[in-house]
Amino acid sequence: MQRLFNNPDDIVDETVAGFVRAHRDLVRLSDANPRVVLSHACGTGDRVGIVTGGGSGHEPAFVGYVGETLVDAVAVGELFSSPTAKAFLEAIRAADTGKGVAVLYGNYAGDNMNVKMASRMAAKEGIEVRTVVANDDVCSAPMADRGRRRGVAGEILMWKVGAAKAATGAALDEVQATAQRAIDATRSVGIGLAPCTLPANAKPNFEIAPGTMEIGIGHHGEPGTAVTDLKPANDVADEMLKIILDDHDLASGDEACVLLSGLGATPICELYVLYDRIERELGERGIGVHRAFVGNYFTSLEMMGATLTVMKLDDELKELIDMPAASSGLTVRSAG
Amino acid sequence: MQRLFNNPDDIVDETVAGFVRAHRDLVRLSDANPRVVLSHACGTGDRVGIVTGGGSGHEPAFVGYVGETLVDAVAVGELFSSPTAKAFLEAIRAADTGKGVAVLYGNYAGDNMNVKMASRMAAKEGIEVRTVVANDDVCSAPMADRGRRRGVAGEILMWKVGAAKAATGAALDEVQATAQRAIDATRSVGIGLAPCTLPANAKPNFEIAPGTMEIGIGHHGEPGTAVTDLKPANDVADEMLKIILDDHDLASGDEACVLLSGLGATPICELYVLYDRIERELGERGIGVHRAFVGNYFTSLEMMGATLTVMKLDDELKELIDMPAASSGLTVRSAG
Repeated sequence: MQRLFNNPDDIVDETVAGFVRAHRDLVRLSDANPRVVLSHACGTGDRVGIVTGGGSGHEPAFVGYVGETLVDAVAVGELFSSPTAKAFLEAIRAADTGKGVAVLYGNYAGDNMNVKMASRMAAKEGIEVRTVVANDDVCSAPMADRGRRRGVAGEILMWKVGAAKAATGAALDEVQATAQRAIDATRSVGIGLAPCTLPANAKPNFEIAPGTMEIGIGHHGEPGTAVTDLKPANDVADEMLKIILDDHDLASGDEACVLLSGLGATPICELYVLYDRIERELGERGIGVHRAFVGNYFTSLEMMGATLTVMKLDDELKELIDMPAASSGLTVRSAG
Repeated sequence: MQRLFNNPDDIVDETVAGFVRAHRDLVRLSDANPRVVLSHACGTGDRVGIVTGGGSGHEPAFVGYVGETLVDAVAVGELFSSPTAKAFLEAIRAADTGKGVAVLYGNYAGDNMNVKMASRMAAKEGIEVRTVVANDDVCSAPMADRGRRRGVAGEILMWKVGAAKAATGAALDEVQATAQRAIDATRSVGIGLAPCTLPANAKPNFEIAPGTMEIGIGHHGEPGTAVTDLKPANDVADEMLKIILDDHDLASGDEACVLLSGLGATPICELYVLYDRIERELGERGIGVHRAFVGNYFTSLEMMGATLTVMKLDDELKELIDMPAASSGLTVRSAG
């Protein structure tokens, strides 16, 4: 295992410590809980607070999306494990300005349980909490059973939209409804080319045979829908796009926001090779890309592969996606 | 080889095409040469133009540093190969506004030759060109022979400083002198944990035995100064820092800009583990980190490992590093 760590038990603490040092212009550590990272504006102003959280090993997710007009507070879990209910609760407390808190998170059993528990405890303290659960991962369950679908990189676009809506001064119900609309308009699909290894385990979490790829694989190696021969990049791009378009209602004349993320070890140039095909193929169908994010946005340690996320835009979603925002993981500049 | 490409011969063209599509708010392709990427402000205004270039496979370098108050024009080479003199010439032509062009590039034989040739051709066309050659890679030659040292991720800080100086309206001589001062104040060191594979070769470019690491390795796998057992991250951080500090004149009370880049496949959380130690160790010596960049800034396909770059700051360098700038690879926001 060619990796850089000290005691495997300390990786998350050391990651958070290094992260907060490196990005202190954007974030700070909670005084109350060392597994909660806050934006400098967290808990201030007259707006709904935005909270998320999830397992570590997906950097820049989740901590990398704490920032200005982005997430206010993140609860940090162990590698590939949910944060505790206590960490979610502290994130909610920190983010509340009296207007309530929207917890926008991904559909995993541990996160569901701990967010639910934290929300109940927060309610007892008089903090109003609403949740939106991301379930953008098309291959994780059929559309008819969308409640079982996992959340993957589409969460980033949900955070972007939810935080922008909160910045407009919208009430909690509106922020929740808009974040829900954002994730409802979003589909993702992942492909895996090589597995990842948790340092404490010292052997791969799952297997992908050389010369093959796994379509529909999850962020933690959850099984996909098919294992096929590894194909040329254009065929891979087409396959990913087909899965998304077959599940979505994008039509000619529509505009989309596209996020293509590497899973950790796939060279960045290859992401651009994929993206080139994806934008051209969308164009062939009359679908314009209003804004694209290409890079390592939501990784799984040193897994090889990529996730494609497509959000169908309407006027409001476009405006919220375009609102300037700053974080270490994602920056949107002011126009012009 | 678990990788995403079509015909290996097309990777660079497809990377550039996808890159320009994804980041069209920041960059455009030259009409005159498909291997030249330009900022939107390239060739406009009354300022010195900033040009660089280098081989592909190091994304976001080099194209990712084209942007606002950053590089104006980049010449793009094949994977791990110098751009042609023709591409450098076209980049120089595009970047010239009449105030001359500073070509800030890395010390590699092919780049030296092609930049020299392009500069001569540009001079014949009446364009004044000055060059600064980055040689920040400590382990590539002894200090007494600094002219043989390679340029690595320190180039990014040189571009940042040179472009900021140009934005102040400084003359070509001043931009050249300041970029030179920037790279003179900068040292880098790389460590390799696993090699990378050029798609056309289909086998690793070099070897690093499991359980070992190579200290001082170059961006293309150029041999380092030692192969040792792979150590805990803190020891690796200490070793990298020692190499830099032994070669540098940083003293207690100094401030530094630190850039820690992954080489491609090292998980991002591990970069923060390393960074945490590095900033603490600098602090122990009374050296403050004014600004840090941690992430995949200058990669080598799917190589595992990292490079550490430290620039000693003075008042002017600090101001130039802090000047707002925007590119897909690096963004500095306006203060406050």
